[in-house]
Amino acid sequence: MRIILDGMGGDNAPEEIVKGAVEAIEEIEHEIIIVGHPELIEDELRKNGYEGDRISIEPAYDIITMEDSPVKAIRRKTGSSMVIGLNMVKEGRGDMFVSAGNTGALVVGARMILGRIRGIDRPALASIYPDLSGGHPGLLVDAGASSESKAGNLVEYGLMGSIFADKVWGIRDPKVGLVNLGTEEGKGTSVTKDAYQRLKKSHLNFIGNVEGREVPNGVCDVIVCDGFTGNVILKLTEGVAMSVFKQVKNTITTGMKNKIGALLIKKDLYALKESFDYEEYGGAPVLGVNGPVIKMHGSSSAKAVRSAIIKGIPYARENVVDIIRQELLKIEEDDDADYSI
Amino acid sequence: MRIILDGMGGDNAPEEIVKGAVEAIEEIEHEIIIVGHPELIEDELRKNGYEGDRISIEPAYDIITMEDSPVKAIRRKTGSSMVIGLNMVKEGRGDMFVSAGNTGALVVGARMILGRIRGIDRPALASIYPDLSGGHPGLLVDAGASSESKAGNLVEYGLMGSIFADKVWGIRDPKVGLVNLGTEEGKGTSVTKDAYQRLKKSHLNFIGNVEGREVPNGVCDVIVCDGFTGNVILKLTEGVAMSVFKQVKNTITTGMKNKIGALLIKKDLYALKESFDYEEYGGAPVLGVNGPVIKMHGSSSAKAVRSAIIKGIPYARENVVDIIRQELLKIEEDDDADYSI
Repeated sequence: MRIILDGMGGDNAPEEIVKGAVEAIEEIEHEIIIVGHPELIEDELRKNGYEGDRISIEPAYDIITMEDSPVKAIRRKTGSSMVIGLNMVKEGRGDMFVSAGNTGALVVGARMILGRIRGIDRPALASIYPDLSGGHPGLLVDAGASSESKAGNLVEYGLMGSIFADKVWGIRDPKVGLVNLGTEEGKGTSVTKDAYQRLKKSHLNFIGNVEGREVPNGVCDVIVCDGFTGNVILKLTEGVAMSVFKQVKNTITTGMKNKIGALLIKKDLYALKESFDYEEYGGAPVLGVNGPVIKMHGSSSAKAVRSAIIKGIPYARENVVDIIRQELLKIEEDDDADYSI
Repeated sequence: MRIILDGMGGDNAPEEIVKGAVEAIEEIEHEIIIVGHPELIEDELRKNGYEGDRISIEPAYDIITMEDSPVKAIRRKTGSSMVIGLNMVKEGRGDMFVSAGNTGALVVGARMILGRIRGIDRPALASIYPDLSGGHPGLLVDAGASSESKAGNLVEYGLMGSIFADKVWGIRDPKVGLVNLGTEEGKGTSVTKDAYQRLKKSHLNFIGNVEGREVPNGVCDVIVCDGFTGNVILKLTEGVAMSVFKQVKNTITTGMKNKIGALLIKKDLYALKESFDYEEYGGAPVLGVNGPVIKMHGSSSAKAVRSAIIKGIPYARENVVDIIRQELLKIEEDDDADYSI
């Protein structure tokens, strides 16, 4: 397998990207092709003491930055590491594309260059959502590829997320939950009500509506919502968790007697905070396009890059894209389950 | 002023409701009329040693429970404390209605019995949203009265919330923020994009889009969003904060050395947790109906009831309903600001 890695995308490119690739290559039997400015990438490979032959370089002299407008960037920056990398997957010169670059551009690029899977109305960007009660994180779909969704889109998100959680994470019969404003059937907007009925009729392991209160407690493996809600959930979770940590820290470092307590537990609290950092679970997939694409966080460290590469491999190896394609065909043939939009 | 209090609504009725009324009456110069089963209310007044003449009872023998369907309950349970209380405000026998009962029924009842303010398309349920950085909480509108909103509704929420924050909380020129998936103008759904432009043109102190990450940090006084998003925000904030607290508690009570630290800071952490409990800020208004209606949390304690009564008084005294009415008329006359839906 040839993994195509965007050497120039993200806040810490190319340093952490290349370092992550060097760390990953030791643990896998595949090839990594880093797309980017050859001299810069070579420099980094040298710094990291890499002398093997399973990491190679595909030259790309342009970069899509975080400030670039997604559609314009994909159309105009044809020499960028992102466009070249996606084209390599399209042309069969690579089996998977991994990038920490501009999220919007990656989603648009995946859609424009690789194309939508036939039967999928809207590809989605998934995100790894922490289980604050300590279990395996969930997959939140859509994390913001589209700001508005129809009921059929939500069903697609559930289907694609379910296949990914099964094949890539090894969670058998993953639990699919629909974010809604109440747990009872019949609650919500016209879109969520309709989606509820379709998910209920589907062969997915649909556990019903999930309220905001339950979202952080790992009640389901696939968290289905429209991209607007998904964006609010991801950012609010981060905001609330960070605020509470800050208040706890202020509380335990205020006052004489507490300073003693603070010293004693500081280390453990730091470890706890780290546990919310789920770099070890890898990147998040762009789902519904004709090829495996993995999005890493923009500020990914080498550790996160290493993890996104290694954990992402089953996305390509298990032919998740083909399975999604087949499941959609099955659904088209099945009169009982209507996924039409 | 006569404050009408729902004596039978909520998990702790009538005990905590009556106790709260007795505590409040000492601090105000107004009358409180408790609507409910006369013998039960009398019993509670006696238990609390109340012998004054500013608390009276309006008999109501029926109760709208948490399980009742809102519309049916308001239509059929005409002898319930909620329906009788709302009718008293409508008929001028009371100046404000305060209830800890079924939220859906209270919103529907306020709309059906008191009616919408002319010019308001959709009344809203507000909610008090904590400022996790320690400041005065914000007012989140809508917290779930409607699951879907048009751009004009969002502008109404901003307007009504702004008047409430000014007149009831005393926040001059309150900052109004629109929940969205990015801070930049032009981000979001068709509805939030449109609402942004209208809010920008309005005379409100509109600070622009607010992302989920910033919502818990007190960046604005009035947090505007549709009821679906509002519901998710409120419940997710609670869910994440409780999960993090639980993890912190587990961390500091695990391991020998930490037990010492834990003992030292336990009390302070408890105080911190309490600070997220914003009972002291009073209840949340139903906005856009022809009369002041205050919703208390279903599990309100006497302290919360006392606070909802006292803090709610300016909602009636400052004629917030009339001001909303006048502001809407002004807007109708003003060609530049188009609030039409």
